[in-house]
Amino acid sequence: MARLVMKFGGTSVANVERIKNVARHVKREIDAGHEVAVVVSAMSGKTNELVAWCRDTAVLYDAPEYDAIVASGEQVTSGLLAIALRDMGIAARSWQGWQLPISTDDAHGSARILSVNGDEIVRRFGAGREVAVIAGFQGIHEPSGRVTTLGRGGSDTSAVAVAAAIRADRCDIYTDVDGVYTTDPRIVPKAKRLDKVAFEEMLEMASLGAKVLQVRSVEMAMVHKVRTFVRSSFTDPDAPELKTAGDPPGTLICDEEEIVESEVVTGIAFARDEAQVSIRRVPDKPGIAANVFVPLADANINVDMIVQNISAEGHTDITFTVPTADFERAKAALAAVKSEIGFETIEGATDVVKISIIGIGMRSHAGVAARAFKALSERGINIRAISTSEIKISVLIDAAYTELAVRTLHSVYGLDA
Amino acid sequence: MARLVMKFGGTSVANVERIKNVARHVKREIDAGHEVAVVVSAMSGKTNELVAWCRDTAVLYDAPEYDAIVASGEQVTSGLLAIALRDMGIAARSWQGWQLPISTDDAHGSARILSVNGDEIVRRFGAGREVAVIAGFQGIHEPSGRVTTLGRGGSDTSAVAVAAAIRADRCDIYTDVDGVYTTDPRIVPKAKRLDKVAFEEMLEMASLGAKVLQVRSVEMAMVHKVRTFVRSSFTDPDAPELKTAGDPPGTLICDEEEIVESEVVTGIAFARDEAQVSIRRVPDKPGIAANVFVPLADANINVDMIVQNISAEGHTDITFTVPTADFERAKAALAAVKSEIGFETIEGATDVVKISIIGIGMRSHAGVAARAFKALSERGINIRAISTSEIKISVLIDAAYTELAVRTLHSVYGLDA
Repeated sequence: MARLVMKFGGTSVANVERIKNVARHVKREIDAGHEVAVVVSAMSGKTNELVAWCRDTAVLYDAPEYDAIVASGEQVTSGLLAIALRDMGIAARSWQGWQLPISTDDAHGSARILSVNGDEIVRRFGAGREVAVIAGFQGIHEPSGRVTTLGRGGSDTSAVAVAAAIRADRCDIYTDVDGVYTTDPRIVPKAKRLDKVAFEEMLEMASLGAKVLQVRSVEMAMVHKVRTFVRSSFTDPDAPELKTAGDPPGTLICDEEEIVESEVVTGIAFARDEAQVSIRRVPDKPGIAANVFVPLADANINVDMIVQNISAEGHTDITFTVPTADFERAKAALAAVKSEIGFETIEGATDVVKISIIGIGMRSHAGVAARAFKALSERGINIRAISTSEIKISVLIDAAYTELAVRTLHSVYGLDA
Repeated sequence: MARLVMKFGGTSVANVERIKNVARHVKREIDAGHEVAVVVSAMSGKTNELVAWCRDTAVLYDAPEYDAIVASGEQVTSGLLAIALRDMGIAARSWQGWQLPISTDDAHGSARILSVNGDEIVRRFGAGREVAVIAGFQGIHEPSGRVTTLGRGGSDTSAVAVAAAIRADRCDIYTDVDGVYTTDPRIVPKAKRLDKVAFEEMLEMASLGAKVLQVRSVEMAMVHKVRTFVRSSFTDPDAPELKTAGDPPGTLICDEEEIVESEVVTGIAFARDEAQVSIRRVPDKPGIAANVFVPLADANINVDMIVQNISAEGHTDITFTVPTADFERAKAALAAVKSEIGFETIEGATDVVKISIIGIGMRSHAGVAARAFKALSERGINIRAISTSEIKISVLIDAAYTELAVRTLHSVYGLDA
């Protein structure tokens, strides 16, 4: 007997038929003797419809009202799934965020979960093996008594938070793909599904994983050590391989201790939504970095890769990346302090891509970066900037080389299936 | 300055444009210096969609889950209206049933309101003239913490209950007609709008009024003496006549003391959904009525008109009406106890209509019934049964004569415009 959280996204609950299919997935786990809490998203398309109504009503709509409106989507699917389960003879009831409660801060539209009270869920596991069907993506700001939402994709975070609260053995994220891949299979057909990924790796693979799992849910899973399993909701719920004791197809995101032998490189990620900014001929004196980056922080612009060249003739060049959406604002923020910083020109490019090589095995292996630089150089790909962490090497290159670079690195590190 | 509750039904909030129109109605009252609480229904069609999803998921769906699902409709419109009001510069926030709370019993799907806490609404009137936008039709069963709904048309009841809780001067029911008429204008084009109707009359006019106002909301208005004003939401919110101090077009449902001179007859109502049951040659002895009606009560069948003929040869005939939907069940319930009661035959008819003549003035006027009987007789309309109360005379006739009878009585009592 295990205690499971099962999370189903919008495409998995898109209509009544699919909700009944989800109920069969839940029944399989109940029949196997497990205790189950389910977290559901809104029917796909429903949240967009609700958001459009808010926007049509007022350009500057009130965030708490937006939350009250948008939270209704998950409310409906949680009720429908509870009905479907009861119709199969399984004890079940729905829970809205305010009912458990799932307590959040008051950052309406992108609230953070402060705590989840799972006591009643666990009590009902014991009392009548009742399945808790929880509306994802939502919570309550208790001091004001108002409904909050966690922001797009927040249902993953809800699921992990519930799993932590009830000390679940595993949090199963059912989605429209069957796991996490070494890279995007649309670019590299030879990409293969990973059986296990360490929390830290998954965080770095955010740009890959975003389609599969929200970054914040991975952070929360890492902090609370919630074993999170990404699997497909579009398989037959009663397929024989899902009823055996063995591991079903999918990717387990877990503590690295659970990964017996780590690959040096686990995957290749890429992000197209960063832009490059370079400021030329900055006087090289102490405090210059602060002069450049404080105005950007004040403007709430996230800076990612930072490269500063060696000084020449008392001047230096500084290159960094920002989200493409903030590119113009970043240039404007720096132009406003040009005389204070004393640089000569600002240059920039949006047709760039950040390619990342990720793997916890990197920590104990030398020469990983060198192999990447050599391979890219042999293909004539120019590296504009480099940044590294303990388990990641990122390079900024021209966007035109994205596919070539990803395929090259995927092959170089032996990831091809 | 007055304190108002404004209630808008599904057709009045059917889409974003109409919700903005509702906001203009609210702004007019705020500009006039009034304190305003608004109660809204779901967008028209939305509740039906949600109910259909429940039914598609399971034939026997769980009532508490149904309530959680269906309540989402009003949640959305209350949020959107709050957004529209704020966009016009009016302080406003939405309230779901569980937030005030509107406390109900646990009869999910047709819950009764136990109490409404209006303290916070009133406090915010004082603090910042904030408009309370309340999701109608829903409440919370506090012991279980679960969402309840009041049953179809329950938003009228929510509005009256809120008006009672905050001691509103008036509860304005905005709807798709501009008031209560002396009879159905589709049958009698000369029907005229009533300026004032007493609570007791409105209750009796339920079959007329059902299209305008739920019976339960009238009962609650009567008990708490909530002056309830039925008016149109499809007028221009900024029409000059709505901005004058005079009474806007509509019908006020109020205490009879407020009606200076009552008409003898206020209106002619009719109900097509009753069926006639007659049991022939029942032995006429004490307790026979109980023998007949206890089995019907046990079967939860409402009996309306009851007529017992004068005994002949120790036997009598008993005629009564039941809702058409219960007709077959009523006959079966009686057939089951035929030997105990000892009657000869059961007869029945569903092609009948109950016509009612209603007016509080009737109490102090003689001969009202006689005029009806004479007029119907002159048109060759046979009366199958009669029942009367202090302020109402009802006759049961063949359904084929519905229009003729209604027009005749409307004219006889001087109601034609």
